[in-house]
Amino acid sequence: MVRRRGTGSLATLAFHPTGEGPLSRQLYGAIRAAILEGRLGAGERLPASRVLAADLGISRNTALAAIDQLVSEGYLETRRGSGCTVARHLPDARPAQLPARDVASPAAPRLSKRGRSLAETPRAYSGQGAWHPCFVPGLPDSSDFPFALWARLLARSWRHPDASLIEGGDPGGHPGLRRAIADYLRQARGLRCDAEQVMVVSGIRQAVDLTCRLLLDPGDAVWLENPCYPGIRAAIAAAAARIADIPVDDEGIVVARGIAAAPRARLACVTPSHQYPLGVALSLQRRLQLLAWARKAKSWVLEDDYDSEFRYQGRPLATLQSLDGEGRVIYVGSLSKVLFPSLRIAYLVAPPSLVDAFRKARTVIDEHPPMTPQPALAAFFAEGHLAAHIRRQRKRYAERQARLLELAGRHLAGKLELAPDTAGLHLVARPTGGLRRLADTEIARRLGAAGIVAPALSRYYVGRKREAGLLLGYAAVPDDRIEPALKRMAEVLEA
Amino acid sequence: MVRRRGTGSLATLAFHPTGEGPLSRQLYGAIRAAILEGRLGAGERLPASRVLAADLGISRNTALAAIDQLVSEGYLETRRGSGCTVARHLPDARPAQLPARDVASPAAPRLSKRGRSLAETPRAYSGQGAWHPCFVPGLPDSSDFPFALWARLLARSWRHPDASLIEGGDPGGHPGLRRAIADYLRQARGLRCDAEQVMVVSGIRQAVDLTCRLLLDPGDAVWLENPCYPGIRAAIAAAAARIADIPVDDEGIVVARGIAAAPRARLACVTPSHQYPLGVALSLQRRLQLLAWARKAKSWVLEDDYDSEFRYQGRPLATLQSLDGEGRVIYVGSLSKVLFPSLRIAYLVAPPSLVDAFRKARTVIDEHPPMTPQPALAAFFAEGHLAAHIRRQRKRYAERQARLLELAGRHLAGKLELAPDTAGLHLVARPTGGLRRLADTEIARRLGAAGIVAPALSRYYVGRKREAGLLLGYAAVPDDRIEPALKRMAEVLEA
Repeated sequence: MVRRRGTGSLATLAFHPTGEGPLSRQLYGAIRAAILEGRLGAGERLPASRVLAADLGISRNTALAAIDQLVSEGYLETRRGSGCTVARHLPDARPAQLPARDVASPAAPRLSKRGRSLAETPRAYSGQGAWHPCFVPGLPDSSDFPFALWARLLARSWRHPDASLIEGGDPGGHPGLRRAIADYLRQARGLRCDAEQVMVVSGIRQAVDLTCRLLLDPGDAVWLENPCYPGIRAAIAAAAARIADIPVDDEGIVVARGIAAAPRARLACVTPSHQYPLGVALSLQRRLQLLAWARKAKSWVLEDDYDSEFRYQGRPLATLQSLDGEGRVIYVGSLSKVLFPSLRIAYLVAPPSLVDAFRKARTVIDEHPPMTPQPALAAFFAEGHLAAHIRRQRKRYAERQARLLELAGRHLAGKLELAPDTAGLHLVARPTGGLRRLADTEIARRLGAAGIVAPALSRYYVGRKREAGLLLGYAAVPDDRIEPALKRMAEVLEA
Repeated sequence: MVRRRGTGSLATLAFHPTGEGPLSRQLYGAIRAAILEGRLGAGERLPASRVLAADLGISRNTALAAIDQLVSEGYLETRRGSGCTVARHLPDARPAQLPARDVASPAAPRLSKRGRSLAETPRAYSGQGAWHPCFVPGLPDSSDFPFALWARLLARSWRHPDASLIEGGDPGGHPGLRRAIADYLRQARGLRCDAEQVMVVSGIRQAVDLTCRLLLDPGDAVWLENPCYPGIRAAIAAAAARIADIPVDDEGIVVARGIAAAPRARLACVTPSHQYPLGVALSLQRRLQLLAWARKAKSWVLEDDYDSEFRYQGRPLATLQSLDGEGRVIYVGSLSKVLFPSLRIAYLVAPPSLVDAFRKARTVIDEHPPMTPQPALAAFFAEGHLAAHIRRQRKRYAERQARLLELAGRHLAGKLELAPDTAGLHLVARPTGGLRRLADTEIARRLGAAGIVAPALSRYYVGRKREAGLLLGYAAVPDDRIEPALKRMAEVLEA
């Protein structure tokens, strides 16, 4: 039996126009909600559009538009001569199935196992605007990046783009940018590569993610330096690899320990030019050992050429990629620290035998790199702005490091010892004197409470053997803020 | 015993300056190569820098720079009074371990199992420049996108960026763009969402990848429409999910079949507004069934609101997201078709309970979305350009579809039947008459040989039951090319 009611049911509509969106849309939403929440039952008759309009104080066309939409969506049915009724073929148990929306539920959604590990990864310090506490590590100083020039290059490249720019289907990235990157890496880093081997990626994490998923199955072992950058650890874990933590000494990753711990690992992830966070360079001996192992084990090496642009003395050692005679090295580097962090442009140089596989994998996982910055960046390289910017930054950072060392010697003597570093954006400060009895995490906590961010070195390790220290990022700290920060540290550590 | 040789060994250096890079760098490379390839043995003495310079016709400073670098890298050792010798602590078996580079090897690199499946995924047709064959599906017409305006917005947003733009650490994306997207989706698609729920991603694939890795463990089942877009299938497979192929009928995905095949699937991936490639809309009944199942099974629904912007008649049904009372729907959509393909900007709207988990997972896998286009895009939305552009495109595509239908009726009658579609960028053409005896793949092959790209519908299916047809993408075909292409098709299919 079809129930029939008069216009009395209008009260159940709860139609409260809000000014957001067209009135007909709002009415539509109110009627639909009433149906879905069971306030209007199956077969229930709606007032004629004329009545509805008059009752609600809206135009008849508005009412008709809402009703037409609901009819076309199957919420309402029209019958000859009897106006509209709520459709009967909606499930009877509707209200129970679709209760009034409670968007907060389910309170604790059921993630997958790997999802929980993804969602539990602690976030590193993340920028919060113009003012950063001293001494957040890893932040470059982008304040004198030539943004006016950058804006011009962006506008120039997009004013009259050709079809290849608009469609951008190459999974490796913009051909001009890939050529520029290959030229740069050959000249600055001695790489043996051509543009075909270069793939533009969003960052080291995407490079690690792609590499692990292409070359490793879940559970396969990966050598990872201990200590290391937690972001790399998280990315490898997210790709379901089993991490073999390999210690680092004065010559970098201890290859013999890697061979002992996981001789059949499929991949070794290393930062040979400037180990993160310790700053040591991988010795030539170790480089050759690592490549010999990779060759014998038919494994791969991911060379993260971390901070190679910011070297203040001497030249870096030859890259693994240039020493590699077999095509077992995947070389990765980022431009986001060199230019500015939100750029999210990095590169991966694949050995020739993997170029095609990387391109296909990239297509599946993420199509191709976003085109917007790429042609401007290619021009930025080609017109010499990159080289000029790196020279300026290198000089500025070297001066800042010298200033930090000098002032720390004056203010922190007997508390923290800072050794100079030939490269990078941070120094490691080691507790000395009485502070050696304190855990570095406790020192970091006390400093943090006083507004000084200096992460504990021990946090970058896993396992029991951890060195104590603090990371002091100096690259982004304005010159006039170094001394006040060090004085504050001295006060805190005095107490 | 240290072997000693005179300057005779210079011949082994193979120093052939090329003009590429500084001379000292080239000399350094030549000596290093001679050492690594065994032409200069351990302990072998190098000529004095003066002799080297004279013999090679270079300045002494150049020779010294090369030697210094090799000493600092450990290739050479200096002994008081005896000049330089090749370092003895390099492994003796060096030449065997590092043969002269043969970059082409290993010929067939050993990929992982998942890597092989990634690298074997066939590529869809990919744009090759200005001229596309008719009728590549999925290509939008970006020829009248207001690029001059776009270039101005890019320049304006980057000329004097503030720190939050330069650092851009928010894993969800630019706050202004997220607000603009949330506003747009509330108004245009009736979504219930705020800016916090919106995450800027590079495309539907990244959204699928993130969703699968966050919510599914390897081997968990996912409902996928059969037929479907192969890119989505590949992305789900790459995340190691087990795909349950669910048939599609006139009302969209057959939910009952999904429940029968994989009742405990963790996720259902659907294109409810306009099924790809068939074009049907998921009926309201089915929408409610799907949500009821998700609720009962504690599973998730990924709603790919494919082509919802290009609807030429009527209004789309209410989105699953807006019908969802429980927060079980992840809504995704892309702007790369609406604006231009190389933009690579899409969005994911997470239910409130998953917002935090998505943000953390994104950070691990890919940090945060590239900032370059985001502020310009936020302005493009806010200043009304998006709405205007969509209106123009919708009109243009509707006209093109009408033209295609009319001309196909004239030229392809008795061969292919095209039904109109209320939305989308392609039509499905069904073989009729004698052509019904031919496999659609054979028809596509013949057309392809004549320069007409019209993929076979059966290719979008898995399993035995496949409908025959051809996909004709019309959105990017200039008006004056439709008729010649159809005439050519008629000729080919006549033969």
